[in-house]
Amino acid sequence: MDPLIPEKVQQAVGILDEQGIDLWLTFVRETSAAGDPMLPLIFGADLTWESALIVTRRGERIAIVGHYEADTARNTGAYSEVLEFHKSIREPLAETIARLDPAQIAVNTSTQNLYADGLSHGMYQKMQDYLGAKYASRLVSAEGIIAPLRGRKTAEEIRRIRTAVATTAEIYQEAFEYIEVGRTEREINAYMLERTGERGLQPAWDPQSCPAVNSGPDSPIGHTMPTEIKVAPGHLVHFDFGVRQDGYCSDIQRMVYMLKPGESDAPEPVRRAFETIWRSIHAAIEKMKPGAPGAEADAAARQAVLDAGYPEYMHATGHQLGRAVHDGGGLIGPMWEKYGDLPQIPLEAGNVFTLEPGLVVSGYGYMSIEEDVLLSEDGVEFLGPPQSELILKG
Amino acid sequence: MDPLIPEKVQQAVGILDEQGIDLWLTFVRETSAAGDPMLPLIFGADLTWESALIVTRRGERIAIVGHYEADTARNTGAYSEVLEFHKSIREPLAETIARLDPAQIAVNTSTQNLYADGLSHGMYQKMQDYLGAKYASRLVSAEGIIAPLRGRKTAEEIRRIRTAVATTAEIYQEAFEYIEVGRTEREINAYMLERTGERGLQPAWDPQSCPAVNSGPDSPIGHTMPTEIKVAPGHLVHFDFGVRQDGYCSDIQRMVYMLKPGESDAPEPVRRAFETIWRSIHAAIEKMKPGAPGAEADAAARQAVLDAGYPEYMHATGHQLGRAVHDGGGLIGPMWEKYGDLPQIPLEAGNVFTLEPGLVVSGYGYMSIEEDVLLSEDGVEFLGPPQSELILKG
Repeated sequence: MDPLIPEKVQQAVGILDEQGIDLWLTFVRETSAAGDPMLPLIFGADLTWESALIVTRRGERIAIVGHYEADTARNTGAYSEVLEFHKSIREPLAETIARLDPAQIAVNTSTQNLYADGLSHGMYQKMQDYLGAKYASRLVSAEGIIAPLRGRKTAEEIRRIRTAVATTAEIYQEAFEYIEVGRTEREINAYMLERTGERGLQPAWDPQSCPAVNSGPDSPIGHTMPTEIKVAPGHLVHFDFGVRQDGYCSDIQRMVYMLKPGESDAPEPVRRAFETIWRSIHAAIEKMKPGAPGAEADAAARQAVLDAGYPEYMHATGHQLGRAVHDGGGLIGPMWEKYGDLPQIPLEAGNVFTLEPGLVVSGYGYMSIEEDVLLSEDGVEFLGPPQSELILKG
Repeated sequence: MDPLIPEKVQQAVGILDEQGIDLWLTFVRETSAAGDPMLPLIFGADLTWESALIVTRRGERIAIVGHYEADTARNTGAYSEVLEFHKSIREPLAETIARLDPAQIAVNTSTQNLYADGLSHGMYQKMQDYLGAKYASRLVSAEGIIAPLRGRKTAEEIRRIRTAVATTAEIYQEAFEYIEVGRTEREINAYMLERTGERGLQPAWDPQSCPAVNSGPDSPIGHTMPTEIKVAPGHLVHFDFGVRQDGYCSDIQRMVYMLKPGESDAPEPVRRAFETIWRSIHAAIEKMKPGAPGAEADAAARQAVLDAGYPEYMHATGHQLGRAVHDGGGLIGPMWEKYGDLPQIPLEAGNVFTLEPGLVVSGYGYMSIEEDVLLSEDGVEFLGPPQSELILKG
């Protein structure tokens, strides 16, 4: 069993106390088909019948599960009490809540934070019915618990992300040796997936676009599949890649320039674009401090790109990273409606963020570097060596 | 792209018309972290920003997605119109709904059917806000669309399940040759996973319990991991296993008896248990007819076990099978609260069900066979050769 599960459930007890919330209830069913994104962090296995995971500020940690999953619940090592049922969770759930008599019941619903929104609308209604009017009136959103629980990485979580970052750097090194004029984006994607697979690992997201590989000005950017476009002299080759290792993710973008015959360095527009992205990343880092909203770092990074005369990139500068590749809570992003209030959430020590501004270099391709960084009270640390120079291939 | 996606989206148009519902709206975000279980059937890729998939009874099929996922939406071949946005889905969504002006908007919320309950409570609230009071008042549950859409398998879906069943039979054959006295449950699990992996396939559910392997009377039954228990003479060895092939699942249980020295057949209690399970499965099949509720087949199978003097098994006799290993809609189950009204849903031609009654043979182990069957107007067909005799190993 994963030792992180009891560690995170215990961490939740402290956060409940800090937030002044008596009880946190995660209510799920058949999670192999429709999971709550908190389950991998606080249970580490699927649950089939309707099941409840309860954590209280007094330290009770109770799992109410179908009889044949009780052993799995015990084996997590995270729950001090495991209650099992045969036909319905109604009675054990209602009795447990009545016994604990919480003044507030935090549940996984949030319009803003998808990691705090794992409760389906149908299950929300069902839970209200099970709890009865008295306790249903005490429901509050668990977003104030879930954002810090996901965001404040423990030492072991940071160790795992660091390992995933190091592995990603190794595979990138192999890819930089493999890439040459004439190879297609699709071949490079397949090669990197093979290198990932031979380490017994999975890519951090859908292998159809992890790694994303974009060679030259005609390659479509975004979460699309690598194409049959061939690497050619004068192309910027852009990679977006990460691995999942011990359950934790990396997410890193890298840039290669394919020299034309006679060139010994990238042309000026390419060099200027690289320096702009580098400046943009460092502008974000300058503004990253515990307590500051992510929107400030986003604005600084965005302005650096605008100041250099490039158009604004249409995505957030950075997202949190952890068990999910887009993790979080807080976002280093602009105040656009689709991001809700996430960019206003104060950054916290222990947060791991990506930083990934981007721009198009007309005639050459897409330019973006993505670094994974850790925020602490002492400042911002790169979790692996950043790309400080454009990679040149002959 | 998977040709089944446009086929299923087109099938939805006909079901909307049959149900008299103008429009079906699937509303999702960041589905790699928190997916709607309908997405693999009607889109076949993840969506990141808030996205809407709209199908109408008049045949419009509209995807509203973030700009960088528009190509992915077009590539599905399922959507006649792809609208892309940069900052918020609010306007394109509201404008599209106003233009279509549906009398009913079916959304993915259901207390009973988890496949029709992919909409989170937070996203439900957000959608109400985007739609405005006029259209928010027209929301209905999509369960009447989703149950038949998942349940009525197309010819191609049945072909894929049949292939997965055939592969499962092959791997079982290899496992029956591999199993011998002294091997642990864990070794047998690992061996079958290797045979699965070398075919380039994944197990149908969590590899920690797919295959489940239970040897003898002391092995814990349920969705628990195989143990270090060794296969021994006099053990019933129970397997529960399936593969996912071309996106579709099999789910099959098989039974082996390990002969003791001097035995040439299983002892009487084991043989009687095997015959009881066989009778129970056939009792269910007798009652499976289009239009009959699943509860009738469940009751017949359950009664066959009770009539033979064994205790009642504490699970449903069978579930639907398809893109998900527990698929459906309707259930061949008892009217227990945890199953809601699912056992009352009439069976339909094109449904694929498992049948898996079980019982404990005191001193020998768990006895359960699970077969995958297709219901048509002509009757019930096994999708692969059923286990008609106990497998005996020396």
